[in-house]
Amino acid sequence: MPFIYNRTIQLQDTDAAGVVYFANVLCICHAAYEASLEASNIDLKAFFTHPSVAFPVVHANVDFFRPMFCGDKLEVNLFPHKLGVNKFEIIYEIMVENVLVSKAVTRHVCIDAVSRSKQDLSAEMIQWLETNRLDAEGAERRKLREIL
Amino acid sequence: MPFIYNRTIQLQDTDAAGVVYFANVLCICHAAYEASLEASNIDLKAFFTHPSVAFPVVHANVDFFRPMFCGDKLEVNLFPHKLGVNKFEIIYEIMVENVLVSKAVTRHVCIDAVSRSKQDLSAEMIQWLETNRLDAEGAERRKLREIL
Amino acid sequence: MPFIYNRTIQLQDTDAAGVVYFANVLCICHAAYEASLEASNIDLKAFFTHPSVAFPVVHANVDFFRPMFCGDKLEVNLFPHKLGVNKFEIIYEIMVENVLVSKAVTRHVCIDAVSRSKQDLSAEMIQWLETNRLDAEGAERRKLREIL
Amino acid sequence: MPFIYNRTIQLQDTDAAGVVYFANVLCICHAAYEASLEASNIDLKAFFTHPSVAFPVVHANVDFFRPMFCGDKLEVNLFPHKLGVNKFEIIYEIMVENVLVSKAVTRHVCIDAVSRSKQDLSAEMIQWLETNRLDAEGAERRKLREIL
Repeated sequence: MPFIYNRTIQLQDTDAAGVVYFANVLCICHAAYEASLEASNIDLKAFFTHPSVAFPVVHANVDFFRPMFCGDKLEVNLFPHKLGVNKFEIIYEIMVENVLVSKAVTRHVCIDAVSRSKQDLSAEMIQWLETNRLDAEGAERRKLREIL
Repeated sequence: MPFIYNRTIQLQDTDAAGVVYFANVLCICHAAYEASLEASNIDLKAFFTHPSVAFPVVHANVDFFRPMFCGDKLEVNLFPHKLGVNKFEIIYEIMVENVLVSKAVTRHVCIDAVSRSKQDLSAEMIQWLETNRLDAEGAERRKLREIL
Repeated sequence: MPFIYNRTIQLQDTDAAGVVYFANVLCICHAAYEASLEASNIDLKAFFTHPSVAFPVVHANVDFFRPMFCGDKLEVNLFPHKLGVNKFEIIYEIMVENVLVSKAVTRHVCIDAVSRSKQDLSAEMIQWLETNRLDAEGAERRKLREIL
Repeated sequence: MPFIYNRTIQLQDTDAAGVVYFANVLCICHAAYEASLEASNIDLKAFFTHPSVAFPVVHANVDFFRPMFCGDKLEVNLFPHKLGVNKFEIIYEIMVENVLVSKAVTRHVCIDAVSRSKQDLSAEMIQWLETNRLDAEGAERRKLREIL
């Protein structure tokens, strides 16, 4: 089972066109990532506020299939996976009433926050990636859903 | 009992000084107001997206007593009250671990969204104000807490 | 002459109601404050990013007289003044086509950013306050404008 | 010559890690797009506020090569091009002191804003795409810069 983050679209997320402002969907995805870290008992303040080890986003992308409106109840499904000794990626599937409305990816690299040089993922993050890893069966099911 | 909105401080709410960016506290207050409307079965999409009747903020203020950090769990207490036939105000008390960290106010006026002329509060809003009105006893208790 | 900051309303500033989201006006005011610091040759990175001395906002308020729309060209007039040995305030007047559409205030206190205890304003800030202080004549003129 | 948008990184753009919050770079890119529309005498209010024809973002991606800090002076270079009868794409190159710090893309589709069905690009947008199109020589030069 993927980690699921629930979030109602707020007025602040929208723009004068009447729908969600595109970049705000990535903010909601990052909030889902934070909620997932917290669910693994990671201290968010220590993790994000001037830490010694950081995991900055080096790439992000997002696709929009349907507009989202103020009051819409999003369900964000989180699929993180390791990409290498110092990299990981999170895939986000955003559903409204069981319909996929958007899909996003953030790619993160592990760095020493002072020197900003790459370093191996911390034990804490390897643990988090293990906990949230989609097992083979789940991946199969998800693939199927995409085809259907 | 006031309406209570729970919200964890997200990375996006903070700035390079390491704490919450001041104006974002007002966004969190507005989200609390939206959650309260939703709890009264008000349709947020119809209420906020190009409506015929709108309740724009005409005044807001906020005081900060303690800094808020990423991961802090806020409890926002909402105290709305009617100010006149076409006006209402919401007081927000923001607590972290039972300590008042910030207090805010938004003042709203009821307008025809097209002509932008003032008009009487809708039945829906009068109902919402009634439901969330702090009774005399509660107000007394709250006052006491401020003194202590 | 006050410091003037020019800013066009962007889509991101607006919400589904079709106008500027109220709290974003305070963000624009803070951007005006930053531009004014920069005009006084203050290094913004050192000033805001994990500094030893910080000037957090302890109070803010804002009044809205007219809605602002995407594409509106704002002129933000900045009036800072010292409130005490460790405090200052900035008044912002926001004009669109010479009409006052909004007015805001931010109040700042000088603290040691680590201990978060109050301390006297730095020489740098006293200098900035002096430079941007409204002289008696200007204040008179401004008062007059408010009456008219 | 591409359209160039200049923007100083503001406190609001940053987060507690001390650098720009990733999604805010896409907001800055969209602001560059808006500035470019305005430079072509397109009325931003009519274009974005409940229009009859809209150009929502259907895809966005962004890569980060270096962190951006409060006070950094960005130069955003804008390269729009037509993708089909109802689609266009904008490539954004973000420089700080002549170094490429980030690169982003937004892909837009032309729709009837009420029915949300696809429709051909308006004459106004075809004109804007023509004006901002990178000529063959410029594209060659840019390619070269990427190789070097």
